[in-house]
Amino acid sequence: MSYGKMFSLMKMAADQEWQAYTKHEFISQLSSGKLPEEKFFNYLIQDYLFLIQFSKAWALAVAKADNLEEMKLCAGTLNGLINFEIDSHIKLCASYGIPQSQIENADEKHNNIAYTRYVLESGYSGDFLDLITPLIPCVLGYAEIGKNIAHCKPENQMYQAWIDTYSGTEYQSLSRDVGALFDNSVDLRLGMHFEDSYKWASLKKKFSKATALEIDFWEMALR
Amino acid sequence: MSYGKMFSLMKMAADQEWQAYTKHEFISQLSSGKLPEEKFFNYLIQDYLFLIQFSKAWALAVAKADNLEEMKLCAGTLNGLINFEIDSHIKLCASYGIPQSQIENADEKHNNIAYTRYVLESGYSGDFLDLITPLIPCVLGYAEIGKNIAHCKPENQMYQAWIDTYSGTEYQSLSRDVGALFDNSVDLRLGMHFEDSYKWASLKKKFSKATALEIDFWEMALR
Amino acid sequence: MSYGKMFSLMKMAADQEWQAYTKHEFISQLSSGKLPEEKFFNYLIQDYLFLIQFSKAWALAVAKADNLEEMKLCAGTLNGLINFEIDSHIKLCASYGIPQSQIENADEKHNNIAYTRYVLESGYSGDFLDLITPLIPCVLGYAEIGKNIAHCKPENQMYQAWIDTYSGTEYQSLSRDVGALFDNSVDLRLGMHFEDSYKWASLKKKFSKATALEIDFWEMALR
Amino acid sequence: MSYGKMFSLMKMAADQEWQAYTKHEFISQLSSGKLPEEKFFNYLIQDYLFLIQFSKAWALAVAKADNLEEMKLCAGTLNGLINFEIDSHIKLCASYGIPQSQIENADEKHNNIAYTRYVLESGYSGDFLDLITPLIPCVLGYAEIGKNIAHCKPENQMYQAWIDTYSGTEYQSLSRDVGALFDNSVDLRLGMHFEDSYKWASLKKKFSKATALEIDFWEMALR
Repeated sequence: MSYGKMFSLMKMAADQEWQAYTKHEFISQLSSGKLPEEKFFNYLIQDYLFLIQFSKAWALAVAKADNLEEMKLCAGTLNGLINFEIDSHIKLCASYGIPQSQIENADEKHNNIAYTRYVLESGYSGDFLDLITPLIPCVLGYAEIGKNIAHCKPENQMYQAWIDTYSGTEYQSLSRDVGALFDNSVDLRLGMHFEDSYKWASLKKKFSKATALEIDFWEMALR
Repeated sequence: MSYGKMFSLMKMAADQEWQAYTKHEFISQLSSGKLPEEKFFNYLIQDYLFLIQFSKAWALAVAKADNLEEMKLCAGTLNGLINFEIDSHIKLCASYGIPQSQIENADEKHNNIAYTRYVLESGYSGDFLDLITPLIPCVLGYAEIGKNIAHCKPENQMYQAWIDTYSGTEYQSLSRDVGALFDNSVDLRLGMHFEDSYKWASLKKKFSKATALEIDFWEMALR
Repeated sequence: MSYGKMFSLMKMAADQEWQAYTKHEFISQLSSGKLPEEKFFNYLIQDYLFLIQFSKAWALAVAKADNLEEMKLCAGTLNGLINFEIDSHIKLCASYGIPQSQIENADEKHNNIAYTRYVLESGYSGDFLDLITPLIPCVLGYAEIGKNIAHCKPENQMYQAWIDTYSGTEYQSLSRDVGALFDNSVDLRLGMHFEDSYKWASLKKKFSKATALEIDFWEMALR
Repeated sequence: MSYGKMFSLMKMAADQEWQAYTKHEFISQLSSGKLPEEKFFNYLIQDYLFLIQFSKAWALAVAKADNLEEMKLCAGTLNGLINFEIDSHIKLCASYGIPQSQIENADEKHNNIAYTRYVLESGYSGDFLDLITPLIPCVLGYAEIGKNIAHCKPENQMYQAWIDTYSGTEYQSLSRDVGALFDNSVDLRLGMHFEDSYKWASLKKKFSKATALEIDFWEMALR
């Protein structure tokens, strides 16, 4: 099972960052159940703030799309984020006594700002691919992490729920759709010889930088 | 039944344009059934191209929103446009023998470009209100027109369907939601003394200009 | 003397619009001196409003540039527009009794809005080339028109001044710089096989549409 | 001597961050001459990359301005950055053996990305004030720091040159212009009761966050 050709190529080109991101200590601790709950909640709160900006990026992608098909796929992803993933964060926090107001008013940490604003600015300043590419490490990285630790059985129910979400069929299916969208949107714009193009070289840098910024997100969560 | 306080104030300030827009000859001919079908199809095709750009504007509004509530409302409107209104245009055209490819490849007329790009540029260059305000004449203008001609019974089934759509409970309900979003977003940002603010004066000009551009859209349809 | 390879290719692909634009009746009347002065002033006022938006487009190009060289060239053009061309419009109008306040508060005509917002939206939604390309018909079209009518000697001193400006060495030199910027920015991004690329096809449509919108600008001026 | 009323109010509201930023250890080490040269060059290189993005922000401000006066002031600042400040960085580095290519290809550190993309995204998503406000801590903070350490005489000539630049009349004069632009642009948009407005509260948060991101820039430079 794969998330597409372009993703595989990007991942290989950023191999060092990719390994450091997807096999980060935060994931080890979460999957073994050793992660202190306080750190998990800090992560959840920052992730909520992240998802708000991330949703805005997918919304912007609708405005930057070149055809109705792309618009629909991005709007579908936006819908999933805004009506399901964000709400599930609010509910999870609520079930552990963290009220929605506390999440919404939490201070956005700088490592969090760095990633989301990097993506959004790349999108505003550039075109559809400049926006989509740095989103991919998040969407497909979580899918890969989910599969990698799907067999883990941490005792903590929250950690189990996190693993189940990202390894589950719904998220995996969404991820394959996003991988296909990435393949098709690169195909359409860069054609057969995409690997020789100026744009592809530029996108590889953005993918790599976004992956490095994801590592910093885990670092922030462990601090 | 009303579409909100801010809309009423805006409409009054642009009364001349508003009357010329909502009581345009195109509407008279459509509601009486005298509109030549060829002109209706030309309108439908341009309206399809319009809705693509209009959807992008609502998507951009998600990226420019100040809170989750605004994001959800704009994403909901985007969803309605992209998954229902645009598809219904495609189906309506198909039922009269106009294939989707012909609609998608139709040349965007300049009066059409003028309105949609005016809205999008106002949104990109400005803030949430600069984007939302010039969208209002379209959404709530069609709602008002729909109500105005709800009693008309043109013999042409397509024209009846058009009237039923915009006078129907679904569109009227969406329109009240948009009117409430407009009220709340102005309230939040401009406060009690909004009518004395620089921003309000600027928004009134944008509402008025957008309404004038809607008149030109009807003019284009009749040509 | 030429304004670059990419411009030549674009112009050939949009030949019909290009002829209608550069050999428009407005130019014939201006170069023969038969243009009514009132129409010339209406044109000047709309052109002032146009240059404000046009300057914004060149400013946005700085934000969308890929390297310091591009940034400097676009900032230089912005500087020329904002500190010289716009001021010269204000002075010309003043010398004929039209005060600056009247120009600034003039109503922006819809044909004017259509072109400037088309360019700006294409830039905001797309990348550097999507912004630069629809600016080219204006910059290089005026340069070509200037050369075409450089030999004309209308009795009206204003019309002579207009011809001298756009056929003069300063404007011609700026135009060659812009043509070179266009060549280099396409070269950098699309490479040797640019004519086979998706992007080139898309840019050709934008060039052609922008040229058609320029025709409408002349039409507006003659009305 | 002051940099304007709005800046003073913003600074007071973010006092803790402001002190930590303007009296940071990096400044102490630079003004006493104890700063290791290697750290200064790392700072210079990151500051070059910063200035590229910062120039783009001032360019975007031209596109988001509400009148010609604002456009001219922002274009003037852009000009100063792109044609003088950036070039002086290149020359300073060159005089110490760091070639331009090394600067241009240097990896942008995450603390650097965080600040510049925060500013640009705030500008793209918001209006003129949302863009200008988070730029102020940089422009006027450096002016204040320059004045604070104007009397210091570090033996290192580069550090002396840095102090002379930011305490010098040219930079101080530009800073007062930017302070006046900030005053006028807030006055115009928010009016007399600006301190009670939603927008002012939102801008104070952005000023404070931008100042905190400046602290992280110094931290990065010392690491």
